[in-house]
Amino acid sequence: MSTRRPRTAAIIAVGSEMLTPFRVDTNSLYVTERLNDVGVQVSLKIVAGDNRGELAEVVGAVLARADIVVLSGGLGPTDDDVTRDAVADVLGLPLEEDPELVEHIRRRFEARRLEMPAINRRQALVPRGAIRLDNPNGTAAGLWIRTGDRHVVLLPGPPRELKPMFDRAVSVHLEPSTGGARVYRRVLRITGRSESHVDALAQPIYGPWASRQPSIETTILAVQGQIELHLSTSDERVAEAEARLGQLAASLEAALAPAVYSSDGRTLEEVVGHLLAARGYRIALAESCTGGLLASRLTDVAGSSAYVERGVVTYSNEAKTALLGVPESMLAEHGAVSEPVAAAMATGVRERAGTEVAVGITGIAGPGGGSVEKPVGTVFVAVAISGEQRVQRFDFVGPRSHIKYQASQAAMDMVRRWLLER
Amino acid sequence: MSTRRPRTAAIIAVGSEMLTPFRVDTNSLYVTERLNDVGVQVSLKIVAGDNRGELAEVVGAVLARADIVVLSGGLGPTDDDVTRDAVADVLGLPLEEDPELVEHIRRRFEARRLEMPAINRRQALVPRGAIRLDNPNGTAAGLWIRTGDRHVVLLPGPPRELKPMFDRAVSVHLEPSTGGARVYRRVLRITGRSESHVDALAQPIYGPWASRQPSIETTILAVQGQIELHLSTSDERVAEAEARLGQLAASLEAALAPAVYSSDGRTLEEVVGHLLAARGYRIALAESCTGGLLASRLTDVAGSSAYVERGVVTYSNEAKTALLGVPESMLAEHGAVSEPVAAAMATGVRERAGTEVAVGITGIAGPGGGSVEKPVGTVFVAVAISGEQRVQRFDFVGPRSHIKYQASQAAMDMVRRWLLER
Repeated sequence: MSTRRPRTAAIIAVGSEMLTPFRVDTNSLYVTERLNDVGVQVSLKIVAGDNRGELAEVVGAVLARADIVVLSGGLGPTDDDVTRDAVADVLGLPLEEDPELVEHIRRRFEARRLEMPAINRRQALVPRGAIRLDNPNGTAAGLWIRTGDRHVVLLPGPPRELKPMFDRAVSVHLEPSTGGARVYRRVLRITGRSESHVDALAQPIYGPWASRQPSIETTILAVQGQIELHLSTSDERVAEAEARLGQLAASLEAALAPAVYSSDGRTLEEVVGHLLAARGYRIALAESCTGGLLASRLTDVAGSSAYVERGVVTYSNEAKTALLGVPESMLAEHGAVSEPVAAAMATGVRERAGTEVAVGITGIAGPGGGSVEKPVGTVFVAVAISGEQRVQRFDFVGPRSHIKYQASQAAMDMVRRWLLER
Repeated sequence: MSTRRPRTAAIIAVGSEMLTPFRVDTNSLYVTERLNDVGVQVSLKIVAGDNRGELAEVVGAVLARADIVVLSGGLGPTDDDVTRDAVADVLGLPLEEDPELVEHIRRRFEARRLEMPAINRRQALVPRGAIRLDNPNGTAAGLWIRTGDRHVVLLPGPPRELKPMFDRAVSVHLEPSTGGARVYRRVLRITGRSESHVDALAQPIYGPWASRQPSIETTILAVQGQIELHLSTSDERVAEAEARLGQLAASLEAALAPAVYSSDGRTLEEVVGHLLAARGYRIALAESCTGGLLASRLTDVAGSSAYVERGVVTYSNEAKTALLGVPESMLAEHGAVSEPVAAAMATGVRERAGTEVAVGITGIAGPGGGSVEKPVGTVFVAVAISGEQRVQRFDFVGPRSHIKYQASQAAMDMVRRWLLER
């Protein structure tokens, strides 16, 4: 039977470590997104510790308030994994060993030439009537329990186990009853602009859509090194929703171009990779202050071995001279953190690698090493394409890791914008 | 009157934006740390939306379970700031305007040459009997309410307003009644072992401490590429607590050695950096499948320019030959992903850089490129120190980014273990 009343969910992350000052729950973000997709709103999120009695109390209290309760974590084999027991307690269901699950767990150990430890049998215990959610990425199976018109879902804690499992389970157990209305989203990713600058340009465009029928909701979000505009709209017809999102996205891209680097979920490293591959170009990287982060980000993309020819991390002056041919006299005259050295690094690595494109980065990531003229955060990025080159100075702020990240982001964006011109 | 019974707290973050897929609550980490300091354990964390009725219900339910309830957010001037009203509702207290607060808010606007908007008067409403917590960084005052032997604390959402306010309030309102008991922690970080393997060795050692008086609580945690053991104990005397933690940590380290790489909060890259620096060694890196991630992680450490001499990312065979001297015949005979190539990469970069230590990594990060003999996840790591070398094969599983991370982790751990022997 299909219901159109908006349904609500509560998400419970189980794990005492998330009640310490050291860990936050992030699984709930993915779970929320997937629930929103099928029109379910999250009304409450909870983090509970590894205590069977307390967890049972929490689940009981939450079941009275939400149509769907999603628990993550606490499905491991050890004594402090109490989610199965707590849920069985509160629902009054006996736990029974599932022989197929025992087999699944045994086979996972066998594949690694290990014998299944006795404690892992605990992971095959299932509250009577629960539907098993298979876990291709681990030993902990998920569980889906219907109790009256409510759903209780148990998921393993590791994100790479939880995500594909929940994704599949939602389409099997929840989607068919939503009456077709789904939430559709689009994310515009923007780099090289501040949040307030983006909002000043974008608000007059997305603002009116909030009160239209059907509406589009827009959220502006500043995340490390970039701005995101999240557009979402609810509809029963995919074509209508996509057309509406496409219309707003196109207006925003026109107003913000060329700062919008993707509207289809691609990361900056993927966009740069596609631009290189489409032109048959290869890239070489010479990094100082980013310490290999740029190479690592570019090679996070599957298939990047087709266009990343090499990278060199030249922290020392000797390495800059030996590996890139940066003249000692230039280092002495201008200092390692300077425009000519960045340019010489890019040119040097490009000539040696024989690639069409190259990047040179030198800067001061901190916390030490700054001066009045070149404080911590000073970074020079050079891009060389064929015979030409461009160099830019940036003044970043923040801790060491943030400066490294922003510098890698700026370098990719310089490459992207230049390739788009060609 | 002082009480020695360990007290519990619940933390409620108020704000509908934290029930979307885009935002997590992080204020609770700071609040938890400060509460732990004075011996208060957090037993529950909740994120609730901007709905007065629902929030009142949640606060009511939580008050029955915790001695202290800390709410953050929802103290602004607009209609969807409902924390004051919800708390007043559930405690049955009337809201009264505090003239001093009106003055404080008016003065903050005056300082910016603005007139106080009428709606900001809402921020001066206080449940009868509440103690005002001054906010030097904003218009929203915090509130501390005693109800019987329980405390309800209302804090503004922005971290720079919340932190100093809560810090001061805890020392005034909570610390005097704790009899000096505080929580002390230690974290053992372990790499190269599975969670169940670590637990099998560690449980017999930490298990008995859970029921001793005074006790130590232990949590085992699997995070990307490593295992953590979190130990915590409560005591009035710092020396006693530290001695107790030191005793258990030493027993665990002895049983797990050399897999424990730190018990003082240091990351693996910091530990490796300290080992190198202490010996006056420098390191050079030759990376293929990790694509610069190892160099990037090592250079995340402040001061790493003292010992990271260079890194090369040799994705192509040509780069392996040109930059590292890996013979073409070796690449043809054994393939780029092989034990001899890993060894030749390490030796090649070490000789060229003139460092004491070097690493060579070659493998298949996926998703493509695997074969039956060398499936995705096959990684060879070679470490060369002075004239000697060691090579190890690893078979990792997971997506590309995870394989890269695990390979960088394994390489650092090989370096660490070998340096410890010397």
